[in-house]
Amino acid sequence: MSIVIKNGTVLSSTGASAADVLIEGERVAALAMPGGLAEQWSAHAERVIDATGKYVLPGGIDAHTHMEMPFGGTNASDTFETGTTAAAWGGTTTIIDFAKQEKGSSLLSTLDSWQQKADGNCAIDYAFHMIVSDVNETTLKEMRTCVDSGVNSFKMFMAYPGALYSTDGEILLAMQQATETGSMIMMHAENGIAIDELAKQAVNSGRTEPVQHGFTRPPELEGEATHRAISLAQVTKAPLYIVHLSAAQALAEVASARNDGQNVFAETCPQYLYLSVEDLAKPGFEGAKYVASPPLRDKSHQPDLWRGLRTNDLSVVSTDHCPFCYVEQKELGRADFRLIPNGMPGVEHRMDLLHQGVVAGEISLARWVELTSTTPARMFGLYPRKGVIAPGADADIVVYDPQARQTLSAATHHMNVDYSAYEGFALTGQAETVLSRGRVLVDAGEFHGAPGHGRFLERELCQYLN
Amino acid sequence: MSIVIKNGTVLSSTGASAADVLIEGERVAALAMPGGLAEQWSAHAERVIDATGKYVLPGGIDAHTHMEMPFGGTNASDTFETGTTAAAWGGTTTIIDFAKQEKGSSLLSTLDSWQQKADGNCAIDYAFHMIVSDVNETTLKEMRTCVDSGVNSFKMFMAYPGALYSTDGEILLAMQQATETGSMIMMHAENGIAIDELAKQAVNSGRTEPVQHGFTRPPELEGEATHRAISLAQVTKAPLYIVHLSAAQALAEVASARNDGQNVFAETCPQYLYLSVEDLAKPGFEGAKYVASPPLRDKSHQPDLWRGLRTNDLSVVSTDHCPFCYVEQKELGRADFRLIPNGMPGVEHRMDLLHQGVVAGEISLARWVELTSTTPARMFGLYPRKGVIAPGADADIVVYDPQARQTLSAATHHMNVDYSAYEGFALTGQAETVLSRGRVLVDAGEFHGAPGHGRFLERELCQYLN
Amino acid sequence: MSIVIKNGTVLSSTGASAADVLIEGERVAALAMPGGLAEQWSAHAERVIDATGKYVLPGGIDAHTHMEMPFGGTNASDTFETGTTAAAWGGTTTIIDFAKQEKGSSLLSTLDSWQQKADGNCAIDYAFHMIVSDVNETTLKEMRTCVDSGVNSFKMFMAYPGALYSTDGEILLAMQQATETGSMIMMHAENGIAIDELAKQAVNSGRTEPVQHGFTRPPELEGEATHRAISLAQVTKAPLYIVHLSAAQALAEVASARNDGQNVFAETCPQYLYLSVEDLAKPGFEGAKYVASPPLRDKSHQPDLWRGLRTNDLSVVSTDHCPFCYVEQKELGRADFRLIPNGMPGVEHRMDLLHQGVVAGEISLARWVELTSTTPARMFGLYPRKGVIAPGADADIVVYDPQARQTLSAATHHMNVDYSAYEGFALTGQAETVLSRGRVLVDAGEFHGAPGHGRFLERELCQYLN
Amino acid sequence: MSIVIKNGTVLSSTGASAADVLIEGERVAALAMPGGLAEQWSAHAERVIDATGKYVLPGGIDAHTHMEMPFGGTNASDTFETGTTAAAWGGTTTIIDFAKQEKGSSLLSTLDSWQQKADGNCAIDYAFHMIVSDVNETTLKEMRTCVDSGVNSFKMFMAYPGALYSTDGEILLAMQQATETGSMIMMHAENGIAIDELAKQAVNSGRTEPVQHGFTRPPELEGEATHRAISLAQVTKAPLYIVHLSAAQALAEVASARNDGQNVFAETCPQYLYLSVEDLAKPGFEGAKYVASPPLRDKSHQPDLWRGLRTNDLSVVSTDHCPFCYVEQKELGRADFRLIPNGMPGVEHRMDLLHQGVVAGEISLARWVELTSTTPARMFGLYPRKGVIAPGADADIVVYDPQARQTLSAATHHMNVDYSAYEGFALTGQAETVLSRGRVLVDAGEFHGAPGHGRFLERELCQYLN
Repeated sequence: MSIVIKNGTVLSSTGASAADVLIEGERVAALAMPGGLAEQWSAHAERVIDATGKYVLPGGIDAHTHMEMPFGGTNASDTFETGTTAAAWGGTTTIIDFAKQEKGSSLLSTLDSWQQKADGNCAIDYAFHMIVSDVNETTLKEMRTCVDSGVNSFKMFMAYPGALYSTDGEILLAMQQATETGSMIMMHAENGIAIDELAKQAVNSGRTEPVQHGFTRPPELEGEATHRAISLAQVTKAPLYIVHLSAAQALAEVASARNDGQNVFAETCPQYLYLSVEDLAKPGFEGAKYVASPPLRDKSHQPDLWRGLRTNDLSVVSTDHCPFCYVEQKELGRADFRLIPNGMPGVEHRMDLLHQGVVAGEISLARWVELTSTTPARMFGLYPRKGVIAPGADADIVVYDPQARQTLSAATHHMNVDYSAYEGFALTGQAETVLSRGRVLVDAGEFHGAPGHGRFLERELCQYLN
Repeated sequence: MSIVIKNGTVLSSTGASAADVLIEGERVAALAMPGGLAEQWSAHAERVIDATGKYVLPGGIDAHTHMEMPFGGTNASDTFETGTTAAAWGGTTTIIDFAKQEKGSSLLSTLDSWQQKADGNCAIDYAFHMIVSDVNETTLKEMRTCVDSGVNSFKMFMAYPGALYSTDGEILLAMQQATETGSMIMMHAENGIAIDELAKQAVNSGRTEPVQHGFTRPPELEGEATHRAISLAQVTKAPLYIVHLSAAQALAEVASARNDGQNVFAETCPQYLYLSVEDLAKPGFEGAKYVASPPLRDKSHQPDLWRGLRTNDLSVVSTDHCPFCYVEQKELGRADFRLIPNGMPGVEHRMDLLHQGVVAGEISLARWVELTSTTPARMFGLYPRKGVIAPGADADIVVYDPQARQTLSAATHHMNVDYSAYEGFALTGQAETVLSRGRVLVDAGEFHGAPGHGRFLERELCQYLN
Repeated sequence: MSIVIKNGTVLSSTGASAADVLIEGERVAALAMPGGLAEQWSAHAERVIDATGKYVLPGGIDAHTHMEMPFGGTNASDTFETGTTAAAWGGTTTIIDFAKQEKGSSLLSTLDSWQQKADGNCAIDYAFHMIVSDVNETTLKEMRTCVDSGVNSFKMFMAYPGALYSTDGEILLAMQQATETGSMIMMHAENGIAIDELAKQAVNSGRTEPVQHGFTRPPELEGEATHRAISLAQVTKAPLYIVHLSAAQALAEVASARNDGQNVFAETCPQYLYLSVEDLAKPGFEGAKYVASPPLRDKSHQPDLWRGLRTNDLSVVSTDHCPFCYVEQKELGRADFRLIPNGMPGVEHRMDLLHQGVVAGEISLARWVELTSTTPARMFGLYPRKGVIAPGADADIVVYDPQARQTLSAATHHMNVDYSAYEGFALTGQAETVLSRGRVLVDAGEFHGAPGHGRFLERELCQYLN
Repeated sequence: MSIVIKNGTVLSSTGASAADVLIEGERVAALAMPGGLAEQWSAHAERVIDATGKYVLPGGIDAHTHMEMPFGGTNASDTFETGTTAAAWGGTTTIIDFAKQEKGSSLLSTLDSWQQKADGNCAIDYAFHMIVSDVNETTLKEMRTCVDSGVNSFKMFMAYPGALYSTDGEILLAMQQATETGSMIMMHAENGIAIDELAKQAVNSGRTEPVQHGFTRPPELEGEATHRAISLAQVTKAPLYIVHLSAAQALAEVASARNDGQNVFAETCPQYLYLSVEDLAKPGFEGAKYVASPPLRDKSHQPDLWRGLRTNDLSVVSTDHCPFCYVEQKELGRADFRLIPNGMPGVEHRMDLLHQGVVAGEISLARWVELTSTTPARMFGLYPRKGVIAPGADADIVVYDPQARQTLSAATHHMNVDYSAYEGFALTGQAETVLSRGRVLVDAGEFHGAPGHGRFLERELCQYLN
């Protein structure tokens, strides 16, 4: 069984060229110059997709999602099924989700538990990072077992004291273990200890509305934590990946460390590129829709983030997809912004939102592919299986119509959440056909995938370490 | 009753010039061009000091001492009497000591307690900073009372968890209070949480000797904490003074904040300019003599510190005088370097050791006076009463022989401690006559002072704030 | 003959204190605590000035003036007589003017010529810097003779090709000579070669109005030249002083070099603190009044300059006083902005304009004195003769009324120029009595000085070199 | 006619994967997973290359060569024939050589002249940059014609006054033209004006030996010129490419500009990574072999350069191949180092020398390909025709044996020069088979190419511009 995609413009992280693609079974069997060979192949193919005028690009990899994640007594509203289905609609064919250790539990049982949640339910392939919230002798040893199981990136929190927070001492220990195993520490870099005081002061003085979430998490405290994480990584020689970087101050720290040649990397998310504290300040309780951490920043940070995407101080764009419905979930914090579940939906629209950066001239086509697919694959040990259209790679392919127009809306999106953070955004470009390991998931506005198609991916180590 | 000092070279923070000084009672009554007026004054003076060939400079101000300080179950070996006497011998006529709050106690009772320790015992004038180790609603309010009592600088510790350590949240609260009262936060900037893990690992693996004290406190973790303190000060707009800065990494952070115009200041100490980790690594248990925190660093940091003294990124040289005898005190840590009381003697030799920087061409004469007297006076609200020889100022004056030779030794020093950190150092220059508020304390190798001469100084606010 | 100034607040670069001042002949004989001694002195004094409620500060030193300077076929409109008289009115009692070598002439004859211009004509003391516009074997040797004659600072131009411009090779040679003699290179740091192309392009395309002077001298080209001068100084180890720094980019370069401990210094001028390109853009030919180089910048540079004054990356405020009348002089450039004589008046108002910075809280009183008097004295080898009120110093003293109100205007100023760059500025504070070497020049709105009172000052070397 | 390369590991700038390559005629027709398809293809192929255990990588692109270049009265010793043949031996299949305008001549006639030199003589494909040494209205217009002819990068010199040197004004004008045409300014960034003074001083004082070439070109003056070029590019918004960067100071400037998002790029050369001023200081006249500009630096710069290669502040490695024989050519400077022709051989060994960086762990395999082929292709508008093995690309392919051992020597190299700068270097890895547009040039130690095979490449614009 084979599929041929012909007449398209194949994109990679280095550029674009005309080529036809032969898929056999789950993998890319061959690429050829347009013309001769594809004609032969087409003769025997089950399906021939004519990609004239379309981009043919490697499926997106969203390296930061939280499906069904328990948070503050509720769960993120997308299940692995609904979330991965929505991802597929948007041209994302791999997610790396976070298994979340509860204090007192083990990493391995956590991983088992997440494997069970995902197994049989995913429409696209998936891998896991591990959230380490309880550092002790046992969990440090378990880190090695996780690495052996293809889960070699460990997220820690400098925020959320009393919950996910790790002390600098715990971070140091985990980093030492990361260095020994070649694995990566991922960091939520906000000084949660100081932030919690500011938040308490706000509430105590009657400032309880959603925008206070932003005001009590100043960007300096993201810069601070980023610097601290980098310093601890220097001492321990651990690779470090800053998740959801939102502030110019944090970017400056990352840029400085990278200039020095340290193994420090960072991602940002579409919400920090397109939304701002003005959204958090929307009247009524509307701002709750935009509560996530780090918070949406002043618009003045956005040009810095785009520049960071160009300079590669920001190497990846992920979503931090962690949706909570406005009704009943976000509403938990009506009386106190601290009780609003933190998180925003986004897994469906990452590819499209970043494509607007291409349209606007902020980034090149090649950089679009690099930020959304190739680099996450290399960063998290999935390349060359993912992140590129090349012989032997998984046939995770998006046929993308760069001229299509769409308007984002909760009324039409496929994520299981009752609002869109981008309601009414008019976009140029849309995935037309999406394949995962050779299977057509989305085509001409219809969904042909199914839960259980997606498989767990054991990951190799990061390919960028010096 | 009056004293005339004539024929000397009067030094200030801006330079040197020939002038005669008239002291009446406790204060400088007048300065005059050499010649006429001094002749008149001399006729009626009780004493005329001929300072030909000598420097006449404002008495030194040591802004960082710990007399009798309780630490790890023992007390610093110098009492206020012995310590201030030793200070006077070395040309220091004011100390600012640290009153140290114990967890659970109040700031005001702590201040009372320190007032009692000092009252009637000091040979020279003294003031206090307050160590805040327990931040709560009460102590935050007490800070204001302290300020009203002339104690307007509050030291906090990012090191020593379980003892003096404050969390970032506590620091934030204290800083907010400092901003409101115009007072200063002083910071021991080392990441004690991470350091304690490294120290535990060292001991657990059998590395228990004094040099491990240095190895487990890497300079990156001083740089980190310095950056963190600066960030918290940015958020709260508090003035910040980094004590005993020892590492190039920390200096870089201070320099950067100062370039940005932030109210950030720093001091270093003679031990970081002249001693190094090589001393900590001396054979046997000898290294224990050099255990203080931050630790003595690699020699490569020294040129950076001297440069910082020239660029004014380091504005003050204090001693962090906190002596513990080798016998019985330092020896508490024979089996585990963590039990070695932290601290080194130095109050007697600061002026002389810095004068070697003049001799070596590292700093100018004017800068010597500025670093050791004028700037501490302005920084801590004692100017123009202290820190300058000018009409109306306290007659705290040192007649200094720049050609004298001396060799430092425990056998000859006046500090109450059984070793010298500078044993055998041959120095050029020595205080010949030392006056405190018009009283001759030291003269021609004899001590004429007495406990109780020294008075408590209520301090004004810092004079450098922007 | 003696004068006593009593009941005033004596200011220095480190602070303020109550003191009475005894002047005998040309020098400060003594300072005393208010009260007793001054009473005795007053009894025999020729004059007693009651400075109650007034500041008593060292006379201002304007380290950058161009009296009678030939430029573009005309001469600066203030002679040494009119210019120094105006300076005295404003509380400035010393100027350092620039002797300007013409290409082909010798430094020594130039110095002679300037000595003749000034001799007998100055109302206040004066010294010279030397402008080196023709570097060759002879002039390099003459530099040493200049140094021996008390002229030890040599200004060079990276701007004005074809006139004052020196190549980087010539600068290198002069810097080597400066290093050997311990003297200072002063630099007009703008890339004149590139600027001249931009200016030519402007004129060729019909953009001939005054504001084009600003548009064709972008701040990046001041930053560039500043960096270049610093690099050449690094290679040759020469002390470097950047004159009339106007751009944030240049300030950043200076700050970076100073952080590294290099002997690099900079001044700015009141016009860059208070005026902007908006003045250059005034309608008609009005902008010509504001044509000077570097040009007035966008207002966004002003906060950076104020910050630089606080951080000491800008150590001195001078005027670059170089007035040309609007009528007939500025008008030479009606058809082509390049023909507008470059320069603005200012020597009279520097002390007052900077005092507004005190009033506004930008700088402290002590810093005001330091920037306008003490530091220029130390920078250019006049201290402690000038720059401080201390026994033995020249009695150059200003009794300043900090509450006085004045409005600047060409109608009332004493400079010989037909416009004021600050027309209508309402200021707080004014010099009430001004003494130069014990002679009252200005008092209660009347001028008592005379040309010829001022003497040439042989200067020592810079006192800030490391 | 077709060739199949099978069983190899195909390298790209993002990684490695097993794939077979089908070449038809001059181009890559297809890539396929190992196995099936390649078997079919092999059946009809003229040749099947078994690449088991070998790397299959895109042919190297040396973006900086000077074949037959006239310099100081002599010519670089490699002709286009000998130089491109040597390049092919080393796995380089494209060179971008510099057409060099003489003062007074036109760009277009220069280009014609270089086309004639190269036409019919090259063993591999070639393109041109244009050296602009005479900026005037005519040449500025000709720049546009050059761009239209596929020559869209213009090299200028801040060194070599009197010869290739351009003033900052000329650079500004050319940069403006580059901005308008989207083309690139390449810069030899050394302050030649200052350097010439230092060199003259050296010779005048009898210091005439080769190492003086290094001593008189201090790294600060490369840093300076780099900063200046960047500033001029800022003002004009021109893309800028710093050639043969050798000094840490220059790297810091490039890194800073790139952090700011400016279109600034840089290359270094193998000689700066592996050789040092110690080679220049070899006894006798031996050092002359190592005379090139910028000069070989102190070894301490090397780790910085390797770090720059990792951080992408250095994006390309070229050779600056410009050989002069030791006998008769280098010897021209026996009496005066300034007369030693500047330049070193290297075109043959770039790929191998950089491969040592892979062996040593300095760079990854993917980065090796990126630095030597993919990035030069994208930087200079040759991608995707060159720089990648992909359908439709020119079949410029190297089969590289990573285990081969070779020792560099003038006795065995193919460059037309009587010495090797790397004599005796023992290397790991060697090109085994080299194809250019489908033709086997080198195979199993024999050369099968011929002059005239290589064609001129019209280049597109740089693909990295923001």
